[in-house]
Amino acid sequence: MATRKKSTRTKAAPRKTTRKSAGQASKSAAQKRASDVARRSQALDKVTVKLIQETATDVQRTIHKHKKPDLSFPIRSLSNVSYSQERGYFEIGKQKKSRTLTVNTVKNFAQTLRMMGLSKNLVETNDFATKRDAYYQSKNWEEAKFDEQPESDTVMDDIEAMFSIQGVSREQLRFVPDESYNGSVAGQLIVLDPDRETGEVERIDCTRFGSGAYSIPSSVEQLSFETDARFILAIETGGIFQRLQSHKFWRTAGCILVSMGGVPARACRRFIRKLSDDCKLPVYAFVDCDPYGISNIYRTLKVGSGNAAHLSQFFCVPQARFLGVTPNDIREYDLPTHPLQDVDVKRAKDALKNDPFFKSQKPWQKAINDLLKMGVRAEQQALAKWGLNYVIEEYLPRKLGNTSKFLP
Amino acid sequence: MATRKKSTRTKAAPRKTTRKSAGQASKSAAQKRASDVARRSQALDKVTVKLIQETATDVQRTIHKHKKPDLSFPIRSLSNVSYSQERGYFEIGKQKKSRTLTVNTVKNFAQTLRMMGLSKNLVETNDFATKRDAYYQSKNWEEAKFDEQPESDTVMDDIEAMFSIQGVSREQLRFVPDESYNGSVAGQLIVLDPDRETGEVERIDCTRFGSGAYSIPSSVEQLSFETDARFILAIETGGIFQRLQSHKFWRTAGCILVSMGGVPARACRRFIRKLSDDCKLPVYAFVDCDPYGISNIYRTLKVGSGNAAHLSQFFCVPQARFLGVTPNDIREYDLPTHPLQDVDVKRAKDALKNDPFFKSQKPWQKAINDLLKMGVRAEQQALAKWGLNYVIEEYLPRKLGNTSKFLP
Repeated sequence: MATRKKSTRTKAAPRKTTRKSAGQASKSAAQKRASDVARRSQALDKVTVKLIQETATDVQRTIHKHKKPDLSFPIRSLSNVSYSQERGYFEIGKQKKSRTLTVNTVKNFAQTLRMMGLSKNLVETNDFATKRDAYYQSKNWEEAKFDEQPESDTVMDDIEAMFSIQGVSREQLRFVPDESYNGSVAGQLIVLDPDRETGEVERIDCTRFGSGAYSIPSSVEQLSFETDARFILAIETGGIFQRLQSHKFWRTAGCILVSMGGVPARACRRFIRKLSDDCKLPVYAFVDCDPYGISNIYRTLKVGSGNAAHLSQFFCVPQARFLGVTPNDIREYDLPTHPLQDVDVKRAKDALKNDPFFKSQKPWQKAINDLLKMGVRAEQQALAKWGLNYVIEEYLPRKLGNTSKFLP
Repeated sequence: MATRKKSTRTKAAPRKTTRKSAGQASKSAAQKRASDVARRSQALDKVTVKLIQETATDVQRTIHKHKKPDLSFPIRSLSNVSYSQERGYFEIGKQKKSRTLTVNTVKNFAQTLRMMGLSKNLVETNDFATKRDAYYQSKNWEEAKFDEQPESDTVMDDIEAMFSIQGVSREQLRFVPDESYNGSVAGQLIVLDPDRETGEVERIDCTRFGSGAYSIPSSVEQLSFETDARFILAIETGGIFQRLQSHKFWRTAGCILVSMGGVPARACRRFIRKLSDDCKLPVYAFVDCDPYGISNIYRTLKVGSGNAAHLSQFFCVPQARFLGVTPNDIREYDLPTHPLQDVDVKRAKDALKNDPFFKSQKPWQKAINDLLKMGVRAEQQALAKWGLNYVIEEYLPRKLGNTSKFLP
């Protein structure tokens, strides 16, 4: 047993290939991939530091010329956000606000520069800071310290937005989210994660966690992947994820399970996006059939959110498709339902009327209107009416046999 | 590198022992431990099924005698809960409610028996159900189906309470929580988890997750552990956990890190309790210094919660002690603070006046009164004022050098 386990540790493809050769091949491929990632991320670090330095140098040069320096940031409000159907996500527009150094703005100006300095320092020491970390760090910035965290959050958001225009993500600035839960993963995937000090690559085999799972870290930029899975299944509830994981659904279906735990956190969305991009895997969302599941969870996963549009290019998963539970499933599987509440109806109507994503998608308009007409909602676990493992034995296999029917 | 990694996979004690012998010794010890766990859990399964059968047979026998059968359940209200200082947790009292089979109670009576039948079936098929699963399952119980989930939740709680009197936990009944997040683990720990079908034991090395972590499953009864850690550090926020994990604090401190993500979910508390019991490890809690951190997060971890007292004997961690952040730390480390809000003051006063745990602990009364006098609260991450890694380099080592000073 131990020997078998050791050999499976070193390969990505337990199902399809013979053990030894797969192990050797994938190990060297893994090392190559990991060193590619390391090289790419070093190059990105250089770009990031260079951009920060250039921005700061511009300010300094202007001051030396006895002129008033300014910094300009994309406006982060819904009026400056549009949905790009071609790219598949919310994009920030061209409107900018300019902040000129004056007597009134001097503190905020200094804080912005200190915050950029913190980012540069984090890149150079290979460390990271959350919004809260940054706020408390500032308590040692003397006159430039922030009085309240919302102030420092705004400055950080502005800097993120400013650099996002040049394709630099918040993770490259080493700003990471404060969330406690970034999602769990199980299935046919090996995650490669280089140690932040030694660079030695950890190979994390997501088939080997028993009934537990891999918990996604707050930053995933340094990760690379090996997999022979055929798709990623992004799941709303812990209950369904645990059932699929405990029964090793990923083995029979050849997939990777991700538990989002409701609306997916940023790191969770970035993980799914990166995994899907890097390994060319389709992403199927499996959530409750209600306006929250559709227009909050799925929409956020797929196109991002309007009020953080400067991050969508990195965080959304435009390739995601909707497996279920669909309004049609409620009828077809005769599922137990709950009546739609006022808040559900409001949310659905709002999606139809105001959401640029749903407004651009006919099949979704039909589905949401269907749901409103039926006046009910159904949870994923409603499938348990037909047996606790009906979801594994019947529902998912049937659905996955016809992926072209998935909602966009 | 690969060779070293393989050898570390098979040992529990990377710090203290030589590699090969430790690997061999721990592997056979691990197998023994895992088969002990398997034997114990089979024995428990037999007890569970026997108890269910006896209860049901009693009912049947009474009916055959043309008498009215009844079932009696401990009353699950705060009036029937007491804090046992000796055992260190909330205990359910001796008051019971009896449910006799009559025309009025027949549906509920039948539902209770069907729910017990579901539990027996789950044990026999080695499966599990969440509350939501059970509710939807009932939709196929014809006349005995539940109309709303709160009804089935109550019946499940009653059954749990009834069997808890005989030392059977809800996990032994195969009822598992619906929570999406049960906490993450990193550090000097190998988790042994037998496959639910083959019994083959997965060895999950929590030093090997890179910047990620091990995500705790919803039921942990089947797990056993190998570790040479000196203590468990239970952490409130994802931000601090990620910092400690990314900087491998567990290696220098010789410990196991658990991210609770706020008030710990049941599976998280059960995991910490079981790990601490099985491996004789002290548990130190590291949370925000505010009434929520103290009287919600820490109190729930240590003594359980009043309204689920029938579960406390399995879920609470009476051996937990409070590392910080303490009111005294706010002064000693000159931490940035926020003013206490009304809700904080109310919570603190409520703890002093009504909570049997705090009422029995003088040092806590002093600490909470201190906090009220200071009128402020401080977050764990406030330590970042002195540098992002001050928590790792200064605060925790200094605190851990004097564990006898920890609050009880």
